[in-house]
Amino acid sequence: MWEYAFGIPDGLFIKGDVPMTKEEVRAISLSKLRLKKDFTVWDIGAGTGAVSVEAALYCKEGRVYAVEKDEKALKLIRQNAGAFGTLNLTAVPGEAPEVLIDLPDPDRVFIGGSGGKIAEILTVVMQRLKAGGVIVINAVTMETVHRAQEFLYAGGYEVETILVNVARSVRVGGSTLMQARNPVFILSVKA
Amino acid sequence: MWEYAFGIPDGLFIKGDVPMTKEEVRAISLSKLRLKKDFTVWDIGAGTGAVSVEAALYCKEGRVYAVEKDEKALKLIRQNAGAFGTLNLTAVPGEAPEVLIDLPDPDRVFIGGSGGKIAEILTVVMQRLKAGGVIVINAVTMETVHRAQEFLYAGGYEVETILVNVARSVRVGGSTLMQARNPVFILSVKA
Amino acid sequence: MWEYAFGIPDGLFIKGDVPMTKEEVRAISLSKLRLKKDFTVWDIGAGTGAVSVEAALYCKEGRVYAVEKDEKALKLIRQNAGAFGTLNLTAVPGEAPEVLIDLPDPDRVFIGGSGGKIAEILTVVMQRLKAGGVIVINAVTMETVHRAQEFLYAGGYEVETILVNVARSVRVGGSTLMQARNPVFILSVKA
Amino acid sequence: MWEYAFGIPDGLFIKGDVPMTKEEVRAISLSKLRLKKDFTVWDIGAGTGAVSVEAALYCKEGRVYAVEKDEKALKLIRQNAGAFGTLNLTAVPGEAPEVLIDLPDPDRVFIGGSGGKIAEILTVVMQRLKAGGVIVINAVTMETVHRAQEFLYAGGYEVETILVNVARSVRVGGSTLMQARNPVFILSVKA
Repeated sequence: MWEYAFGIPDGLFIKGDVPMTKEEVRAISLSKLRLKKDFTVWDIGAGTGAVSVEAALYCKEGRVYAVEKDEKALKLIRQNAGAFGTLNLTAVPGEAPEVLIDLPDPDRVFIGGSGGKIAEILTVVMQRLKAGGVIVINAVTMETVHRAQEFLYAGGYEVETILVNVARSVRVGGSTLMQARNPVFILSVKA
Repeated sequence: MWEYAFGIPDGLFIKGDVPMTKEEVRAISLSKLRLKKDFTVWDIGAGTGAVSVEAALYCKEGRVYAVEKDEKALKLIRQNAGAFGTLNLTAVPGEAPEVLIDLPDPDRVFIGGSGGKIAEILTVVMQRLKAGGVIVINAVTMETVHRAQEFLYAGGYEVETILVNVARSVRVGGSTLMQARNPVFILSVKA
Repeated sequence: MWEYAFGIPDGLFIKGDVPMTKEEVRAISLSKLRLKKDFTVWDIGAGTGAVSVEAALYCKEGRVYAVEKDEKALKLIRQNAGAFGTLNLTAVPGEAPEVLIDLPDPDRVFIGGSGGKIAEILTVVMQRLKAGGVIVINAVTMETVHRAQEFLYAGGYEVETILVNVARSVRVGGSTLMQARNPVFILSVKA
Repeated sequence: MWEYAFGIPDGLFIKGDVPMTKEEVRAISLSKLRLKKDFTVWDIGAGTGAVSVEAALYCKEGRVYAVEKDEKALKLIRQNAGAFGTLNLTAVPGEAPEVLIDLPDPDRVFIGGSGGKIAEILTVVMQRLKAGGVIVINAVTMETVHRAQEFLYAGGYEVETILVNVARSVRVGGSTLMQARNPVFILSVKA
């Protein structure tokens, strides 16, 4: 079980071949979310559930809903929630935005995957997000960045977009090689 | 006062012209530190005290020592500690490693500035760090990266080195321009 | 006068405060252009004329048209053309796409600045570009990347998009500090 | 056969599983080399020969020596030289610095691979490089960067170090995903 602040290493999650928010991008995303103990959090496109688990560990008096359509990923989310003992993490099978209708209004929304429906998802999120809420989006395609920015700018929201390039060391024969990870755009919006 | 998890925006700190660990690099560094509520933390070369303040807000039952030789920076650290109400943050005037002798043994050490003495500092840190301790170093010069890696590899420690490039959006005339920040190397070591 | 291959250092150009394609991005862009000695090249939004000068030095039997609306920049282009002795470089005052009508059909087109009219410019460029032609675009805003990609994908063109982050060393007090330059997107299209 | 300026796409080279200087880093490196038509160029650790081929195509009245110890790579160099018709490219089997003794003094030296012997190689290169010569080094490990900088700073040389992060687009299901390549340090020295 994890007894520290944010910062679970990638290697401690059960992964399979489901995409995962890597630990450095996860740390930035969680910090931009401005979590409080009793918050209701939606994690849309939760993948392995890494963000959900860390959010749930922090929001001990709140609840995290990990929305995921892929069956294999859902299983991983449940496994990871079990491994980290997060009883306040609910795996929600189904696709956003449709499946969001049954969830309680969120204080915070993290969107790690949008299945090409970022505008539709943001439309629903904006209707449901509580006053003072925050949305953080991770985008790895230029199209998602564009559609999210277009939607948010049109709505008059203030958007911060961060581009993060991370490389991580690997020791090879006594040398330190830097291995790149794909660039990620992190958008933050206050509603 | 900040009532959320890690993630104080840069703009909420009093800065002056003292170098500051920017919020994305701060989020990653704090997450690599693996903090616990009751930890004793050294922040060496604390600058504006941004890392110290966030660590102190988390380690409510512990204490953070912000070591800094520059008088202007020390004043900022005290101002920022005051603004965020962190009574468990002690500003320590003086230069590392000399000034470290009077501090209690740390569970965690963050080195944001080393004044060219990273090897000397690490020597003392390694003697004083508690079992299971973690050190996180931010380096912006190639020389600091090298000296830290050389020292740590020679000591047989396992070192993870991360290279982070962040760019942040600025809205200029209806366009989103990405402005780069200088690359930062983040080294993490478990003792 | 420059007697080498591609690779004029930024410092050899007269700059003023006009934006300039920095030498690393210039080297990549020129290489993606696939120039031949006798080519007709349009450089749209030529700025200081750095790309135009290097293209003109290579295309000795061709001609480079440096399109620029800003008077101050036009003066710099002429000064730089003079300094590097490129008689086959014509500064073209005015705004694209309108001003392109009077120019001979191009073999290659470089777009360094589009004044928010990238789609209009590409429409004209596609009508005028010779068979087998190549277009290279430098974009520093997310909107230009999007509009260019949208236009080009819709037209069925094959587009390669490169994201380049460059940092350059500065020696400060015996240390090597890496200073970041803003990220640039480089799009290449074969017509 | 390639009839354009610098800028042979990676895909046109025969590669096998030998490491290759990717086209963007190659374009920057070649531009930093400041080649002239009649130059003698050493390409040390030539790999697939991509840099050698481009240099040889430009230095038509000069000669390029592609030094490589790996038999598989040597074969690729010869194949690529054949494919691009560069008769002025000589593949030199063996290891630097030993094998350099038999080569004519160079105007330019590119070091793409050093087998952990960058200091030894630079020692010989500095003895042999003609007045006004230029050396360009590609480094992918922190150790090579350090050893090269240490050697060159100690010798009083002016060194420019560039850090380049490149990501390249891949179209996946109608989306543009940016795929990162490992960061490369490019050092340039004028002798």
